[in-house]
Amino acid sequence: MENKEVVNYLLAHNDLKIIQRKDMFNFSLDTVLLSQFCTINKDVRNIVDFGTNNAAIPLLLSKRTPKKITGIEIQEEAVELAKRNIQMNDLEEQIEIIHGDIKEVVKNLPKAQLIVCNPPFFKVGEDSNLNENEYLTIARHEVKIDLEGIISSAAYLLDNKGRFAIVHRPDRMIDILNLMQKYDIEPKRIRFVYPKMNRESHVLLVEGMYKGKKGIKIESPLYAHNDDGSYSNEVRKMFGEKIDE
Amino acid sequence: MENKEVVNYLLAHNDLKIIQRKDMFNFSLDTVLLSQFCTINKDVRNIVDFGTNNAAIPLLLSKRTPKKITGIEIQEEAVELAKRNIQMNDLEEQIEIIHGDIKEVVKNLPKAQLIVCNPPFFKVGEDSNLNENEYLTIARHEVKIDLEGIISSAAYLLDNKGRFAIVHRPDRMIDILNLMQKYDIEPKRIRFVYPKMNRESHVLLVEGMYKGKKGIKIESPLYAHNDDGSYSNEVRKMFGEKIDE
Repeated sequence: MENKEVVNYLLAHNDLKIIQRKDMFNFSLDTVLLSQFCTINKDVRNIVDFGTNNAAIPLLLSKRTPKKITGIEIQEEAVELAKRNIQMNDLEEQIEIIHGDIKEVVKNLPKAQLIVCNPPFFKVGEDSNLNENEYLTIARHEVKIDLEGIISSAAYLLDNKGRFAIVHRPDRMIDILNLMQKYDIEPKRIRFVYPKMNRESHVLLVEGMYKGKKGIKIESPLYAHNDDGSYSNEVRKMFGEKIDE
Repeated sequence: MENKEVVNYLLAHNDLKIIQRKDMFNFSLDTVLLSQFCTINKDVRNIVDFGTNNAAIPLLLSKRTPKKITGIEIQEEAVELAKRNIQMNDLEEQIEIIHGDIKEVVKNLPKAQLIVCNPPFFKVGEDSNLNENEYLTIARHEVKIDLEGIISSAAYLLDNKGRFAIVHRPDRMIDILNLMQKYDIEPKRIRFVYPKMNRESHVLLVEGMYKGKKGIKIESPLYAHNDDGSYSNEVRKMFGEKIDE
């Protein structure tokens, strides 16, 4: 197994490292976008990452805040990797990984003021890739948990006025908004990400507030790439690059 | 009353004129955005504009299509103005104005393949301006009809696979999407308009299809203005200007 592993840097100008396995979920632009999008304010004491996989999001969040971060992950191999990643970055004091089913684990956790989730994007049977192994199937498809399971678990765990932030595909926006309202997480901010100018959005970022007041804002568009295919300055900054503008 | 009237050109490089009254609703960027946003394809035979006021939208649509356009308007003075506008532009053959309540009028109209609506934006009591006269109150506030009345009437009048396009404020997006789904108008396209770069969206354009399949697309952002406050090239084109890019 060891030979499937690679060590990557998560950010530029930064010593944050992550062990990834080629046959498992690898962190992507979505991971970075969500880690930057979510609101971390002074009321936040506990942050929880639903489906943390190799802990990419907790690692990235640790650069924004010293608050306690808990990652929940159902896949045993991913939990092992996540724990090694936390050790390698000396973050055992701040980040804890819990092995288990989100719907069960939330019953035994203290209330959270921020929950983030980069969930499986595909419904079971949708966009099936027969070559996918079980690790990728679970990370990408709603096998172990679906949107309703995620959002109801978030509502259960959130403090009043606590926030839930999720990254997904824009074509699931209506489902997400409806489910959030169903479980009393009022959608407050949306940001659409576009591959480049004059294209449809390919990534949706939504943040809601548990028992929040109605009122949604559509934030300024985020372009992932320039016309020449290079990352946009805004994304390069998210990756920790110093941009001279 | 006559001295309150002005005659404006609706588009550049075009002879389309409109009589407007200073004390009544005046066409705005929203009117132009909606007229350009809605889908007019070969299946469209009848177009209906809900709350047409002085017929600005039918006049603008007449430059995109020769198909029959019906405007419904509840305010008698606006109906008079609309009829004079249609006469002045020699469009009596294409555009008809019906005086009445949308919810009642739709019962006696042939099925439409496209319905457009620039509705009152404010709930009753919201954003009240005590200086507003009755004309403006009705045009801006949900006095005579609310979103549910508009969307249920649209669903009633639409042919299968017919489209409904609306312009509104982004903070009403969730209400609009929920009501469209409630009445079997599946949201298919959204475009957000932003006052300029790096700002929140201030205008929402949504189009749905009656008995359509699920699947929404978020189209490329539209910026109304450049950084210096001038209209963007995309908006100038919508106003009929010839842009040399």
